[in-house]
Amino acid sequence: MTASRIPTDKKTWLYQMLADEIARLIEAGTFRKAERIPSVRNLSRQKKVSISTVQQAYFLLEKKGLIEARHKSGYYVSDRRRTGLPEPEETSPRPDPTRVSVHELVMMVLQDAHNRDLVQLGPAIPSPEVFASKKLNSTTISLIRELGGQTLGYEMSPGSRELRVQIARLALNAGCDFSPDDIIITSGCTEAMDLALRAVCRPGDTVAIESPTYFGILQNLEALGLRALEIPTHPREGVSLDALRFALEHQPVRACLFVPNFNNPLGSCMPGENKKELLSLLNEFDVPLIENDISGELYFEGERPRATKSFDEQGRVILCSSFSKDLCPGFRLGWIVPGRSAEAVTRLKFSASLATATLPQLTMARFLAGGGYGHYLRRIKRAHKHNISAASRAVKLAFPKGTQVTQPSGGYLLWVKLPDTVDSLELYKAALKSGITIVPGPVFSARRQYRNFIRLNAASWSRPKEEAIARLGRIIEELSG
Amino acid sequence: MTASRIPTDKKTWLYQMLADEIARLIEAGTFRKAERIPSVRNLSRQKKVSISTVQQAYFLLEKKGLIEARHKSGYYVSDRRRTGLPEPEETSPRPDPTRVSVHELVMMVLQDAHNRDLVQLGPAIPSPEVFASKKLNSTTISLIRELGGQTLGYEMSPGSRELRVQIARLALNAGCDFSPDDIIITSGCTEAMDLALRAVCRPGDTVAIESPTYFGILQNLEALGLRALEIPTHPREGVSLDALRFALEHQPVRACLFVPNFNNPLGSCMPGENKKELLSLLNEFDVPLIENDISGELYFEGERPRATKSFDEQGRVILCSSFSKDLCPGFRLGWIVPGRSAEAVTRLKFSASLATATLPQLTMARFLAGGGYGHYLRRIKRAHKHNISAASRAVKLAFPKGTQVTQPSGGYLLWVKLPDTVDSLELYKAALKSGITIVPGPVFSARRQYRNFIRLNAASWSRPKEEAIARLGRIIEELSG
Repeated sequence: MTASRIPTDKKTWLYQMLADEIARLIEAGTFRKAERIPSVRNLSRQKKVSISTVQQAYFLLEKKGLIEARHKSGYYVSDRRRTGLPEPEETSPRPDPTRVSVHELVMMVLQDAHNRDLVQLGPAIPSPEVFASKKLNSTTISLIRELGGQTLGYEMSPGSRELRVQIARLALNAGCDFSPDDIIITSGCTEAMDLALRAVCRPGDTVAIESPTYFGILQNLEALGLRALEIPTHPREGVSLDALRFALEHQPVRACLFVPNFNNPLGSCMPGENKKELLSLLNEFDVPLIENDISGELYFEGERPRATKSFDEQGRVILCSSFSKDLCPGFRLGWIVPGRSAEAVTRLKFSASLATATLPQLTMARFLAGGGYGHYLRRIKRAHKHNISAASRAVKLAFPKGTQVTQPSGGYLLWVKLPDTVDSLELYKAALKSGITIVPGPVFSARRQYRNFIRLNAASWSRPKEEAIARLGRIIEELSG
Repeated sequence: MTASRIPTDKKTWLYQMLADEIARLIEAGTFRKAERIPSVRNLSRQKKVSISTVQQAYFLLEKKGLIEARHKSGYYVSDRRRTGLPEPEETSPRPDPTRVSVHELVMMVLQDAHNRDLVQLGPAIPSPEVFASKKLNSTTISLIRELGGQTLGYEMSPGSRELRVQIARLALNAGCDFSPDDIIITSGCTEAMDLALRAVCRPGDTVAIESPTYFGILQNLEALGLRALEIPTHPREGVSLDALRFALEHQPVRACLFVPNFNNPLGSCMPGENKKELLSLLNEFDVPLIENDISGELYFEGERPRATKSFDEQGRVILCSSFSKDLCPGFRLGWIVPGRSAEAVTRLKFSASLATATLPQLTMARFLAGGGYGHYLRRIKRAHKHNISAASRAVKLAFPKGTQVTQPSGGYLLWVKLPDTVDSLELYKAALKSGITIVPGPVFSARRQYRNFIRLNAASWSRPKEEAIARLGRIIEELSG
């Protein structure tokens, strides 16, 4: 649980203890993979606790991916742990808001993002070899030849209509039915989030975020003088709605800024039902949601997960996204669908940058109209899926006992929990000396939690990266020894 | 005078009356061009006012460009009025700050900026034929061929080092001695100003601006919830330092945001001495200056006017500029030199947009390194100078008696005062019906002053524009009739 981690009463304490005990039994092999565990009634009798305490303990274990309920048959030890390493648990950040100060830490991590002498397992920068670079570049050249000086004029906000038409078409996959007029082109998703926060918050306001969350979001909050309220988040199912409800009841939350699809660094993807429930919760408390959907297209299997925005009937959700994680970061092309905040966002975009660069807009519009995006996307997602599983295997082989790693169903990031004794900032420094860059966990938390976590970028994979993981494993052994 | 327009005492009233009387005599031809007017002592005796009252009246007339002092020889009627139409006087905005609300008005004016069916005398968008488009486009194509997918990766803030080196070299012409590390690349001058304002102001703060000023600056203030304090500004010499001192003494001014070189729409260019005095005034009151130098390179004669920043020894000036008015608006390339606000601006840029588009940065860096900028700039400035003088002549021929027009020494804008009876918003609408777009005066004022002013864009000139001015003249006659 979640709101549970906010110590409220004896019962909370009881079911957490119970869940921990069962987790230990599973880890020790007392209960084995796919085996049935005691029924709720039996365990309640055996441990002399209430039925509801056992239910809450099982609910917690289920959320951690350790057990699963089977219809009319009880609870079983989960068989989902593909890499053989357990997943990290739902997080338990502190329940009060805080000022944010991560900029220096982020700068430290980003400084080596372009250093070709290092093995890049750090910043989540897509690898150039996965961009649709040939097609994008040839499209740019054709446009220059056709249009000449016109490619150098302003393309005033809201931006190229043809590009907005193409984005509206793409959004259908996310369940969203936009008119091109609903969309404003931005300088990447970063500008979109900055505009959204400026539209709905004032300095000093509290914004609820996932914990952990993308450090760029923390930088947004820091720059705007906003306070972060970190909400417990599950590595598969995303933000805890119980904890969020608790927060909304007890804190003056001005807005939520979530990454429901393939959260960075967790890789969590909120089920559709949770998205609906999230929205009804926000409707109840009249709080806007800034939804960052930058990785929504990067699912490995089945259907594209819907955007929370697709369930929004009140214009409550401000959708922010970009092409920086799938097609091309250097174009700095993103968009915002501001819903009921349209007027404020429109003004702010004019004030913030007047217009987004012209040639990238024209190029992207033509690239998308040409229909190559789907094909290209399948190619990079195949690569990501392969790389994620190769990276997981490498971690399993090289990292010490007690390591936990996420099993994301999309994206290209792994979130790794190391033994408690490892300080990831020390690991970061030692890895750098060994020619490897990673991202230490505290960068993803306003309170610099996740001291023994790291994020690995598996956007591309290679022999040197495999060797780097092995080397990291040895460094971790030394640091934890 | 200026602070004088803030009615304080009888003396102020006296010297304004005196100045008005002499102005009427000059207009009536009683005192003719290049003729000597009565000495200070004589007039003092004749009018039974103090020496200092006459001195102030003469100072005022001098500022208006109606008379000029000759060394050891007295005052003469000015011979500077090249178009034969007088220049507008120094402005006299209201002396208290106000909230800003110009967005709708600006949107109205901008909506037709790209309408090719209209004669474009409106938005200050450089004409595509004056861009260095061939060279920029061929540079883009070469870079794509050389670098391939690399042109699509991030070029993280502070931006391309090579581009910052080139900008530091250019800044030498403005008297500034920057290291590339002092410079942060932005998405145009608009983002630079937004970052600067966010670094030094909080919502509700008062910012001193020139009156009139560029509407984009008013949009910046509006979006950030800042109050505008409009300072009297002279069409040649820029902001009135007396009035500014008065304002600093009586209002809680948090920052100044000025365009000292070729202010838009006035075309005023502050003399170097005034810039020094401005800076010592700001040092005295400990107020930062956000300096927009976007048109500084567009001088017609002699030396490039220095940036106020070049006199700054305390890191007090935040310099903002871009290539949007001389080379290429569609690249969205600007820069900021934040001085002592470097830390805040660095954070804000990361939060605002992380990076500026890559290919435009690389292209511009190579274009500048190739050395074609100076040659190109001479070409467009020749064109601007020619166009400004053609447009002035056309206005003189077509517009009714009582029209006043600026005589800028750089840039490509004319600021025209029409007879009092003309409402420029009505004129705007009537002109639009007649296929012409202009910018009405109220767009340039937080209080929507300048009701009978318009701004004309003479970045390019052509027979249809000449005819449009003639048509405008007839419409004005009708409206003032």
